Formats: sequence, structure tokens, C-alpha cells
Amino acid sequence: MSILIRNGTIVTQDENRRVMKGDLLIEGDEIAGIGDVGGLADEVIDATGMIVMPGLINLHTHVSMANLRGIADDVSFDKFLEITYGADANRSPEEVFKGALQGCAEMALTGTTCFLDLYYSEDMVAKAAEQAGLRAFLAWAVLDDDKTTQKGSPIENCARFIREWSGRELITPVVGPQGVYACSGETLARARELAKDNGTVCHYHLSETRGEVYDLMKREGSRPIDWLQEIGFLGEGDIAAHSVWITKHEMIALVESGVSVAHCPTSNMKLAVGGVAPVPEMRQAGGKVGLGTDGCASNNSLDMFSEMKTCSLLQKHSKWDPAIISAQEVLDMATTEGAKALGMEAQLGSLEKGKKADVVLVDARIPGMSPMNASNAVSNLVYSCSGRNVCCTIVNGKIVARNGALAGNSTG
Amino acid sequence: MSILIRNGTIVTQDENRRVMKGDLLIEGDEIAGIGDVGGLADEVIDATGMIVMPGLINLHTHVSMANLRGIADDVSFDKFLEITYGADANRSPEEVFKGALQGCAEMALTGTTCFLDLYYSEDMVAKAAEQAGLRAFLAWAVLDDDKTTQKGSPIENCARFIREWSGRELITPVVGPQGVYACSGETLARARELAKDNGTVCHYHLSETRGEVYDLMKREGSRPIDWLQEIGFLGEGDIAAHSVWITKHEMIALVESGVSVAHCPTSNMKLAVGGVAPVPEMRQAGGKVGLGTDGCASNNSLDMFSEMKTCSLLQKHSKWDPAIISAQEVLDMATTEGAKALGMEAQLGSLEKGKKADVVLVDARIPGMSPMNASNAVSNLVYSCSGRNVCCTIVNGKIVARNGALAGNSTG
Repeated sequence: MSILIRNGTIVTQDENRRVMKGDLLIEGDEIAGIGDVGGLADEVIDATGMIVMPGLINLHTHVSMANLRGIADDVSFDKFLEITYGADANRSPEEVFKGALQGCAEMALTGTTCFLDLYYSEDMVAKAAEQAGLRAFLAWAVLDDDKTTQKGSPIENCARFIREWSGRELITPVVGPQGVYACSGETLARARELAKDNGTVCHYHLSETRGEVYDLMKREGSRPIDWLQEIGFLGEGDIAAHSVWITKHEMIALVESGVSVAHCPTSNMKLAVGGVAPVPEMRQAGGKVGLGTDGCASNNSLDMFSEMKTCSLLQKHSKWDPAIISAQEVLDMATTEGAKALGMEAQLGSLEKGKKADVVLVDARIPGMSPMNASNAVSNLVYSCSGRNVCCTIVNGKIVARNGALAGNSTG
Repeated sequence: MSILIRNGTIVTQDENRRVMKGDLLIEGDEIAGIGDVGGLADEVIDATGMIVMPGLINLHTHVSMANLRGIADDVSFDKFLEITYGADANRSPEEVFKGALQGCAEMALTGTTCFLDLYYSEDMVAKAAEQAGLRAFLAWAVLDDDKTTQKGSPIENCARFIREWSGRELITPVVGPQGVYACSGETLARARELAKDNGTVCHYHLSETRGEVYDLMKREGSRPIDWLQEIGFLGEGDIAAHSVWITKHEMIALVESGVSVAHCPTSNMKLAVGGVAPVPEMRQAGGKVGLGTDGCASNNSLDMFSEMKTCSLLQKHSKWDPAIISAQEVLDMATTEGAKALGMEAQLGSLEKGKKADVVLVDARIPGMSPMNASNAVSNLVYSCSGRNVCCTIVNGKIVARNGALAGNSTG
């Protein structure tokens, strides 16, 4: 199967961040050519007036909470936890599957091609992601046996999930130690061992709230990242979500350990965690920082275009400096940096020959994205675009959504 | 002409903030019935799965800058002013008209039915608004003769505009003293006189940046609102944009003078003005606070749905309190409070019998707005909706946009 996308404005996200008018040829699951490729293909898409861009990478979400959207708005953080934990505890695997399928549909329709998830019943999420055709890194939540509402032992559930779902094309199982507030040192050691044994990484919440930091200081005498370093937990390739309430010292430890950060600005602001993740500082220190929506109970959207704009606004606002982060840097976070964080920079994040064909087409022929040309395409994507402007989403060479509908069915 | 909108989820924004399943009947330019109205009409719209809501009111914009979108991203505030003032100075009336028409199209397509604009060449904006069928309050910018790039005297231009455009159905000309940084006491006095003579109000920028505050303190020895009060300028019914860098004393003065505020969170964050307008405090003091996108050079979007979400996020974040403002209160700002600010609470802002038929239909049958029911419709509108989900916009009983296209032509 080959797809030729003709005459688009291609935001390549290659090393030189080239934006060019031209064609993109997909053969099988790979990008086979870019620029003036011409030729024939099984399917030809006219992208006149459209932006052709790499699929967006959502680096932290709980996708199966899509059908819990709006259950805990505008309440204190404690009340939010009470409501969402209560809801989580009472869901059947079927409900998790249903929520995940809805969330995957929302992502496919709004230009996200790859996501990193943290939840329990990730086998249900894996089934939904496969059905939707999305690329998914799935972290089964691991926490202390006496703190979980999962059936059985979380670490054993996670181990079984990894056994059953390894070796797939689009699904990568990883280990999901929930966070220091739910994991003892022993649980973290077992999570790390499981990840090592399976050649995979860990994905966890980290320093999202002040409460989490101070509770751990009471329990272990150290701040979260300091403690994780002390017990030898931090691992190259790990991805930590949030990382809002961290010291400069902790930030350096994170970067030097090779741990990436999934920044979740909308969730942080909506839950009013108060702090702001030090994104420019982490990037300047050489850290990899991607972008995540978090789950629908705290956002309440999986639209990565909206997330990009909020990311830029929050950084500019908090530093009193409109130049602290550029549209290009924010787009990088949602594409190339996300790919690096997942260890997939050779396969994902940019439109280049030989990379996986995760491609999104955005309709830029609307008043709200005009003027549109090569020099402001990135600005339009970050500051003026909604996920609802996505008109085609391709994952691994297959069209998964088109013109507001999912491929192969009429939902959406 | 009558329109019957059937079987929608109606977010009335009436006194009791009722959300109900039912029908809405429009006869001529008015809402003729709501709830179980049944009957016949010239046009019947099936709103099954849709939210029916009052048209959004954008309380501060420079609509004709739509075609200057993206010209000054990610630069210092001074550089931003240099770029945009330079661009403003060199535009022909035709370019202003073209920009305004584009901006009106963007607003019509994204659910804004009424806006308050501040710029020069407002006659061009008026023509564009009439052509698009939007309701517009248009403030011709008035500033000191030696500070303007307008041809002729700004106050005389404004007076002529008011003479020529008074008495229209959808267009209301008002006076637009640009801001204390561009207006002497004498200019402000003449602006006030012009407004009084014509039974209209003033719309102005106020305390957007610290620079503006400190420059005025140097020039006049007082902070902006204190000074405006000292010289007797503040007028009942005026609308001040931004009002970010104000003291508690100034805030009370504003509220007691009957001046409303147009809060512009996206613009404030993107330009990194640093402060946050004291929205909950102003509302608690009895002030009227609406919501504005500001112009496309500083936002870069006229989508009021995005603005609502950003408004909520910024207030929650800055107060470290997720409960400080609710989705309902934010929706109020964009509807009922905007109508009050414009002195139009008897005509606009809610869906009630006898009010003007400014009505928006939102497609809620998408994964990104599910689950959808009467109890979470407001949450979905504020936290999960994009202007691109709007499928029909009605102003004064006439359909101005439908299914992504403007009425009467194929643009959009």
C-alpha cells in the first residue's frame, strides 16, 4: 500500500526545521520520499491548502478516563482525588476498554498518532489502541499492594501485561510505578527490576503537587527526586510526568540520569498545582521535555494543539518573557522531543525518508489560520489551530481518521 | 422568517441557568419560544446531539488585525509594539476591510455573534460586520493628534464615524480613547464629551502592562485608574480592556464608577504582561467582567471557546485554587456578563423569550465532548469544546454561518 500526499505545505521537523511546498510519499509503513517525489501511488491525497506535519506525541495521559470527562471540575485537589479514585476503583475492564476506545478516537481525530499511557487494565487500552490503529506506549500502574484497588498484585499484573503484549508492531508495554506517594522503596525496586528484565522503561508521576513533596519529606526525609536518586531508582529512558515542584538540584539529577519529562500544562493549571515545570531550564540543561494532556478528568481534552498553545502561554506568563519559548520549540516538544523521550527518534517525530509514516494533515484553508505560508505555518499550528482542523491522520502508513470520521467506521 | 431548532440540549443562561432538552423557536429577530414549543416554521433545524447556546460576546478585539496574524510572535513587548504599530500605520482602508471581513468570518464560524472592537477606520470594520451579519460595537480609536498615524484628527474621525453609523440595527458606534499612554487629559475630556453628546460610551485599554502604569505615574503622578478618577473621566457603561496591573483601591473605583472590564487572558499571557486581572475579586465586588480575545497579533485566534478555557486555567493557576472560578462563571463572562457590560442585558446574553435571536449550535456528538448530558454541557462547552465544533451561528434571527461555511457564500 502506498499513499502520495500532493502539494501540501510540509512542516518536516527535520534537523533544519524545513518547511516546504511539496509531496510526501508513503510506502508500506515508511516515508519513502519527500519534496518533489511525483510518481504514482495506490492512493493520492490532494493536500492543497493543507499543512502536512508529523503526528503529535501525547507523552502523558490516562486515555481510558475519556468517558470520565467532567466528573471532577472546579473542586479542590483532595476532592478531585477522592472523586477520580472512587470512579477508578469501580470500573469494569469493559468500561476501561470503552473509555480507551473513545479516547483513542478523540486522539486520532485531533492529530495524535502516538501516546504514553499510565493506568491499570492496560490490556484493555492496548486492545483499544490496536483497534483505533494508534501507536501506544502503555504503562501498567504499579503501586503498593495495600494502596491499590486493582484485582491481584499490581506488579504481577504489570508483568503479565508485558509478557502478553510484547513484540507487537504498535504496542509497547512499559512499567508504571504510579508515584512516590503510592510506592514504597521496595515496590520501586521491583518495578525497576521488572523493567530491566524486559528491556523496557518506567513511566511515573513525579512532583506534581507540593503535598506530594512534603509528604515524602516526612516519610523519607528527602524530596522526591533526591530520594529516587538515593535509592538508585532513576533510570535512563524513563519518563516522569509533571515534575513541577522540583529544585534546580533535582532538575539536574533528572537530566543527568537520562529521565525525560512529560510536561502537562493544562492539567497543572486546571488542578491549580500552583507551580510551573521549569521547561526552558530543563531544555537548556539538555533534558528532553515532551508534552502531555494528562487524562480527561483533569484537562478535559486530549487535543494536543490546545496543549501546545497552553504550554507556550504558561511559560511566557510565568517568566514575564514572551520570548522565553517559541512556537517552534513548542512544536518540537510535541513531536521530536516526544520521540526522543520514547527512544524513538530514529523512527518518529519528523517527516524524513525512512521514518515511520505517522503523518497528520491539517486544513489551513480557514479564516482562523489565514494568512498561511511557509514562514508562519508553525505559528499557525501552535497558536491558531484546533485539533478539529485535522482532516487526515495516518499511523504507520495507514489512514486512521479522515474528514472527522474514523477509518473503517462512521463514529466520530 | 421563522426558525425552529428542534430537540437540542439548550443551555439557556437564564436566571436559573437552566439546561434543558427541547426546542427553540425564532420569529423574526427574536426568540419566540423555548422548551416544548413544537409547531411549524419556515426552517426547521434538527439539533439532536447538539448544544444550543447564546451567541458568545467577544468584549475586546481588533478584528481587522486578523490578516496580521502571526506577525509578532515570541518577541519582547517593545518589539511587539514596534512591529504592530508599524504594520497598523501602513494599512490602507481596503486592507482594514479585508482583515475585518476575515476576522468576522472567523468569529461567525466559531460562535461569536457580537463583538466590541477598538481600532481606526472603524467604518471599514462596520461594513465588514454588516456584510458578515454580526452584531458589533465599534470604538474608533481616539488619541493625541501628535501620537496618531491616522489621517486627520482622530477625535474628528471618530465623531464623523458616529454620525454616519448611528441608528443601525446591528452596528453601534462608540468612542475609543486608546489608553492613557496615548491620550492627554484634554484628549480624554474631548472623548468623554463626544460620547456624552451622542449618548454612547467609551472603550479603552487600561493598565495592561507595568510599563504603562509607571510611565503614567511619571507623567501625571498617579496610577491610571486613580488619575482617570481624579480628572473625572470614568463613566458609567464604559468598558476597559485588560485592567491587569491595578490596585484594590483602583478596582473598587472602577466597579463603583460602573466601568466594566474586558478580561483578555490569552493576550495577557502571550505578551507576558506578568500580572493577572483580579477577576474573582472584581466579580465579588459587583463588577461586570466579560471576556475578550484581543487582536490576532497577540492571541492569535478569535475563538472564544479557547478563550473561556484559558480564562479558567489562568485564574485557577494564579490563585492556587481550582475552585476559584467555575465553568458556569466563565460561560457567564462570555455571555450574560458581556451583555451587561454592553448595556444589552435585556436583549442579549441568554436564550429567553423576547430576547434577540443570537444563537449558536455546537456539535456535541464527537468523542472529545462525550459524555454529554444536561449536567455536564456547560463543562463541555468551557473545557472540551473548540470553536470549530460550532455548526450553526444565528445573529438577530439570521443564519450567518452553517457547517463550516458562511451563509450566502462558500468561504470558510
